[in-house]
Amino acid sequence: MSIITLISDFGLKDHYVGILKGKIYSQFPEVNIVDISHFVSKFNIFDASYLLEVSYHHFPKGTVHVMAVDAAQTQDTNHVALLYDGHYFIGADNGVFGHLTSKMKADKMVQINIHDRIPNGSSDLDVFAAVAAHLAKGGALTVIGKEIEEVKQLYRLNVIVDENQQFIKGNVVYIDDFGNCVTNISQKQVEELAKGRNASLRFFNKKIDKIRKSYTDFKKNDQISLKSHEGNALAIFNEAGFLEIAIYKSNPESIGSASSLLGLRFRDVVTVEFE
Amino acid sequence: MSIITLISDFGLKDHYVGILKGKIYSQFPEVNIVDISHFVSKFNIFDASYLLEVSYHHFPKGTVHVMAVDAAQTQDTNHVALLYDGHYFIGADNGVFGHLTSKMKADKMVQINIHDRIPNGSSDLDVFAAVAAHLAKGGALTVIGKEIEEVKQLYRLNVIVDENQQFIKGNVVYIDDFGNCVTNISQKQVEELAKGRNASLRFFNKKIDKIRKSYTDFKKNDQISLKSHEGNALAIFNEAGFLEIAIYKSNPESIGSASSLLGLRFRDVVTVEFE
Amino acid sequence: MSIITLISDFGLKDHYVGILKGKIYSQFPEVNIVDISHFVSKFNIFDASYLLEVSYHHFPKGTVHVMAVDAAQTQDTNHVALLYDGHYFIGADNGVFGHLTSKMKADKMVQINIHDRIPNGSSDLDVFAAVAAHLAKGGALTVIGKEIEEVKQLYRLNVIVDENQQFIKGNVVYIDDFGNCVTNISQKQVEELAKGRNASLRFFNKKIDKIRKSYTDFKKNDQISLKSHEGNALAIFNEAGFLEIAIYKSNPESIGSASSLLGLRFRDVVTVEFE
Repeated sequence: MSIITLISDFGLKDHYVGILKGKIYSQFPEVNIVDISHFVSKFNIFDASYLLEVSYHHFPKGTVHVMAVDAAQTQDTNHVALLYDGHYFIGADNGVFGHLTSKMKADKMVQINIHDRIPNGSSDLDVFAAVAAHLAKGGALTVIGKEIEEVKQLYRLNVIVDENQQFIKGNVVYIDDFGNCVTNISQKQVEELAKGRNASLRFFNKKIDKIRKSYTDFKKNDQISLKSHEGNALAIFNEAGFLEIAIYKSNPESIGSASSLLGLRFRDVVTVEFE
Repeated sequence: MSIITLISDFGLKDHYVGILKGKIYSQFPEVNIVDISHFVSKFNIFDASYLLEVSYHHFPKGTVHVMAVDAAQTQDTNHVALLYDGHYFIGADNGVFGHLTSKMKADKMVQINIHDRIPNGSSDLDVFAAVAAHLAKGGALTVIGKEIEEVKQLYRLNVIVDENQQFIKGNVVYIDDFGNCVTNISQKQVEELAKGRNASLRFFNKKIDKIRKSYTDFKKNDQISLKSHEGNALAIFNEAGFLEIAIYKSNPESIGSASSLLGLRFRDVVTVEFE
Repeated sequence: MSIITLISDFGLKDHYVGILKGKIYSQFPEVNIVDISHFVSKFNIFDASYLLEVSYHHFPKGTVHVMAVDAAQTQDTNHVALLYDGHYFIGADNGVFGHLTSKMKADKMVQINIHDRIPNGSSDLDVFAAVAAHLAKGGALTVIGKEIEEVKQLYRLNVIVDENQQFIKGNVVYIDDFGNCVTNISQKQVEELAKGRNASLRFFNKKIDKIRKSYTDFKKNDQISLKSHEGNALAIFNEAGFLEIAIYKSNPESIGSASSLLGLRFRDVVTVEFE
């Protein structure tokens, strides 16, 4: 069984996601299609890039990931397909795959060139459906494109590690549906620099004294339970291994969230300090 | 073919639902995964409990229902799995299964104890995916947990039946996406007490003279059609067999709904009167 | 493999979509169910009709399309099923299928009459699930209903083609999730009347000088790239072949959209002029 995942900014009000699935099933009825998100902010390839990075590796090798955000083929932007870390990726060369390939070399990258082989009046969705079905069936990348050496890089916010090992400076890169503020600082970076020292977190004029390994960390190591932290700001590593600022049992729709209550937004600076 | 259903408060903006599916398909590619709702209000186990109760029995026996609302394993809360009414249920022991087991005894209940058997850094989602795939494949409960005798009860709003058989007093327990206000008063309770008498409904200072069996009830029994009721408050039994206050063809986004127009909210008291 | 598609106004907060799938899978476990949209505005059969028309033909022949918008069986409205253009359609005879059958004759239409064959207390969803599973398995229409000659017509906004071939007058019929304003004027109508003349678009006191074939049209034919059009109103044929007014890279949630920025709404008049 093969899986095709979908990330888009289409929303679920219109028919676009549905017809993309119809086009895929028409060519490969046995495939499993999994929605990652269709609520990426319109044209926001930063959000899309984050969601792709934290989700793809939870699927089996060979899975095909379709990235339909800002995906129109234009004068400036080609459609591309990548084989990376055992997974296939399809989308526009708008920078959305740049972060992946900056971390590790892709095994193969092609510029999709089947546009003249599909019927006149076909849309970007037809191209993606045809390529996704082809790859999910085990077809080769070189059949649907000509090899390229690189994809565009997205301007990314970079983490700064103090050379005196006193701090790590990063940024809020994603705000999730709970209003939690995810940073680009990884658990690995913090633990490597900490060397047993306590790590605290600063943003604006606020300080969080302790960084938690996870919500379950409270179970094992605390005198006081997680329950007593309801409403407090926590610094915690999320399931993807990134540091996030969360408020336990927050609710963006009622009492507020880390983002709304603390005023944290995309690109805001957060600093981990060791002592 | 097996089915796994999902209820969560994750929303569909983030990747959590997608990766939960990825984790499940990785272990059991042939399973069918059905979303019940991912828009439960954050941490609202009352809403979650209602949705579970009115949906599970529409699936075949043997279906596995994953309840990922307020599901973190903490000092105070264990993960549990139940066999109840021929269906499997997985979630946190936070009270969300209490209403089910108060109505009928579960066949078996276990506290999940596979946490030390799965890789370090695993999340609650990994636990749920592993248990769901195991049970959907026909695996035994005792393999993934140790038997327990009870699960936590949720504080629930109780229906009061007048001992003189003049009234039933209940509460609004769920407000649906149409703005209809669902109560905890069942069709069975009303019909047993009515014994042929007319039943009317009171809330605040308002009265609805007649309780309808269903929307199709208008077809068979009325001089005037359902159409003529557009915009009026109706008392009606919903498809789950609970009394609800609805406005026919209401729209929460434009003209308003039963909840917004009548001011009814969660926990408000409604009374059925017989005469 | 068979496919059943779903269009509804249920939203995804409640359990209705989930239990509809549960009812279908209970009767036909091997079927593939694809959501087209569950965010049709409540009871809005105009939106529903548009979504059905632009989506159904992207699925293989034999696909069953369930239309659960304003779908209660009432005194005034029966449930119907159609075989049309090689596809099956199920819904209420509320006008939602009228536009399809006004364009081309249906092969067969029946009024569903299985209501007395399913258990007491069954809902409209039970009827739709039973009929959809039956048809997806290859069952005959006549088994589940008695043949009828016509379905209700929806009052539709009509396109006016000037007899002197100077203009086409149409209306906004759908506003999509990007805030783009889709009209009922088709690419075919414009191209047949244009006969090589330039076509421009007028609405209110605004004029768009050129109508684009598609977003990819910019790639091949323009000196300036699509990128330079960001924020400008474009007249363009969408993937369904209808003229729409769009703002490239608009965002209804932040900078605004064609609908919000230009003030265009459902039913507003747009005119294509030739010169």
